[in-house]
Amino acid sequence: MAAIGANPYARIDDLLSNVRNFKIIESTLREGEQFATSHFSTETKIKIATMLSDFGADYLELTNPCSSPQSRADLETICKLGLKAKILTHTRCTIGDAKIACDAGVDGVDVVIGTSQFLREHSLGGKDMAAITKQALEVIEYIKGRGVEVRFSTEDSFRSDLVDLLSIYKAVSLAGVNRVGIADTVGCASPRQVYDLVRTLRSVISPATDIEVHCHDDTGCAVANAFSALEAGATHIDTSVLGIGERNGITPLGAFMARMMPSSRDFVLSKYNLKAIKSIEDFIAEEVGINTPFNNPITGFCAFTHKAGIHAKAILNSPSTYEILNPEDFGMNRYVHFTSRLTGWNAIKSRATQLGLSLTDDQVKEVTAKIKMLADVRPLAVDDTDSILRSFHFEVQNNKAEQNGQSEQQNGENGENGHVEA
Amino acid sequence: MAAIGANPYARIDDLLSNVRNFKIIESTLREGEQFATSHFSTETKIKIATMLSDFGADYLELTNPCSSPQSRADLETICKLGLKAKILTHTRCTIGDAKIACDAGVDGVDVVIGTSQFLREHSLGGKDMAAITKQALEVIEYIKGRGVEVRFSTEDSFRSDLVDLLSIYKAVSLAGVNRVGIADTVGCASPRQVYDLVRTLRSVISPATDIEVHCHDDTGCAVANAFSALEAGATHIDTSVLGIGERNGITPLGAFMARMMPSSRDFVLSKYNLKAIKSIEDFIAEEVGINTPFNNPITGFCAFTHKAGIHAKAILNSPSTYEILNPEDFGMNRYVHFTSRLTGWNAIKSRATQLGLSLTDDQVKEVTAKIKMLADVRPLAVDDTDSILRSFHFEVQNNKAEQNGQSEQQNGENGENGHVEA
Repeated sequence: MAAIGANPYARIDDLLSNVRNFKIIESTLREGEQFATSHFSTETKIKIATMLSDFGADYLELTNPCSSPQSRADLETICKLGLKAKILTHTRCTIGDAKIACDAGVDGVDVVIGTSQFLREHSLGGKDMAAITKQALEVIEYIKGRGVEVRFSTEDSFRSDLVDLLSIYKAVSLAGVNRVGIADTVGCASPRQVYDLVRTLRSVISPATDIEVHCHDDTGCAVANAFSALEAGATHIDTSVLGIGERNGITPLGAFMARMMPSSRDFVLSKYNLKAIKSIEDFIAEEVGINTPFNNPITGFCAFTHKAGIHAKAILNSPSTYEILNPEDFGMNRYVHFTSRLTGWNAIKSRATQLGLSLTDDQVKEVTAKIKMLADVRPLAVDDTDSILRSFHFEVQNNKAEQNGQSEQQNGENGENGHVEA
Repeated sequence: MAAIGANPYARIDDLLSNVRNFKIIESTLREGEQFATSHFSTETKIKIATMLSDFGADYLELTNPCSSPQSRADLETICKLGLKAKILTHTRCTIGDAKIACDAGVDGVDVVIGTSQFLREHSLGGKDMAAITKQALEVIEYIKGRGVEVRFSTEDSFRSDLVDLLSIYKAVSLAGVNRVGIADTVGCASPRQVYDLVRTLRSVISPATDIEVHCHDDTGCAVANAFSALEAGATHIDTSVLGIGERNGITPLGAFMARMMPSSRDFVLSKYNLKAIKSIEDFIAEEVGINTPFNNPITGFCAFTHKAGIHAKAILNSPSTYEILNPEDFGMNRYVHFTSRLTGWNAIKSRATQLGLSLTDDQVKEVTAKIKMLADVRPLAVDDTDSILRSFHFEVQNNKAEQNGQSEQQNGENGENGHVEA
């Protein structure tokens, strides 16, 4: 918090921003089921739903019950669990799908229809916007009549005609839809495009209508686009664990939390159990047979590893110099990598102190040069560097002893490794 | 291109935007060397430099020659290779470092100094801005005097005082620095912050001074921030292969290319050899002992895999419905996953056609229901689905034959798998 409070360039949010007030629609059980290798059993779905609800996800979105008999049975089972999170399902915008969804006992139905010329031509057989709007209003009326929450989303929103989009959103907002959704289905949107569309939409629909954003990650902007949407007034963000979904997926839950922490630390900590992220990710990775990406925010193996000498020096003085996230908030640890050719004497001095070796700054600089020279030749393990340090310390003590006219070798903490070559 | 040209919501770039005119500073041999497990031999560095130059990277940035004797020797070696890419090194802002860099034969020196209060207190021992500016001007004058290109960057720019930042950038621009750098050293910046800072900076410095942006990925915005910087008028983007660097790294080269393609297809194709990305990434991943993230844009194993029935149907009709990137541009392939409970009859029909099986639409729908039912029970491999299709087709042909009063079984393409249970 100090790090952010002290940032003179921090953005002052305007009144429409929901950066400090948003809800998560966790779609691992819908979008995530569309991931190449997903095949969740009923038991697994229950486990995932429970973990995500315990984490604090506001909504869980499940696969359309019309997809297969088991999808329908699983949706009914999860609706009956009595989880804290609200249960949604994601269906085509038809009365048939909506009826089966409501019958399953969901808290809300997320209906979606393609509005881009691409989808209208190739997926919907050439429907025009008037027909799409009429169909949407009928389905919304039906779902509301069943006493169930309803969201209306366009698909491929960023390649849809802006006038078409705003017209249909205005119509469904007037019809009392709870939430409208914008979907970057193909992952083409950039942050400023998202900001502009959400901000424009906010001015067109009723203030009572929430705005949900669903961002695919084909061009690496899914987290940034979600953040920009909140800045513009969106209220709900779609995520999945590790981002799994169609192609390379959507906004990952963990990375999204990493993005929100520097801006909204108190809000995030009040709602979400960040320390559960690692185990939820591990479970999903195991289930779908993937590895957590090495560069995953928070849980990637190197997310909190510091290597360069200049970085290590400052990190040792004060972690916030090179960290915007505190690993402890996520139950993770910081690691300062002191054993490479890029190391510096501050990192080595810190390690010597950890080992209980007493060396002057000049001595530390001397042994650091030695370590860097060896690291030039081959990678050094922590053990290697520790041995070099202990050996150097042993010699230093020996020389001192000799200079003092004493011939007996020093013993103590440096004795055991004193024989290792330096 | 059609996909973008037809997007009615495409942003119209203003005159300052460099989205269609940028340069890449490839820092795998500097930032990438700071990655937790990097330890590049001389031979490996030569290979990496050559691959990246052949790819089309405009600049290669190498580790400070003062880091270790081998770092210095390797820099000299790579400067002598005669690569198409210009060779830079990244040093502290001191005459000592600058002299050794120039002596090594580089085309340019990238100097960096911390300006945030955090770095000034914890890394620079409390230097004030006047002292930092004076030092910067001396170093810039020295490097220019050596006839070498010079960039001046602040470190941790987004947590520095805005007035301090603009003052020092203005001063170095007046002193004729070739390029100023903004560094999101801790990965805290959001796209709109980056846009605003670059845009403000553009109005303060000389139009002749280029702007470089270096984005860390701690909060998942490194690609989006680089893009936003270009929109605001930045000219140079720092990347590394797979994004490797301190902590979870910086803007990844491949993901950045994925981001730029939809906006700047012709420019990108004219400069960069996109088909080399996969092999460059594979080489680096092998060298530093990591896996390409499953969700990596372009090269992640599922980047071009489509699964949901509704998606597969449209993709089969026209790939651009659900793809903003053409896999062929990157030498990759599209894969439509037709063998899951989320499949649809269009995907199955396409597969039947691939297998040379003639079925009516009603028959395809019947066998699709069968496949979905089985996929509910256990994951189906491609072979499984193909067997079901062949078996179903065999039965259909048989029934037809029986109805025609013929008793002999049909042979042909469906014979070999006809016995497999359906």
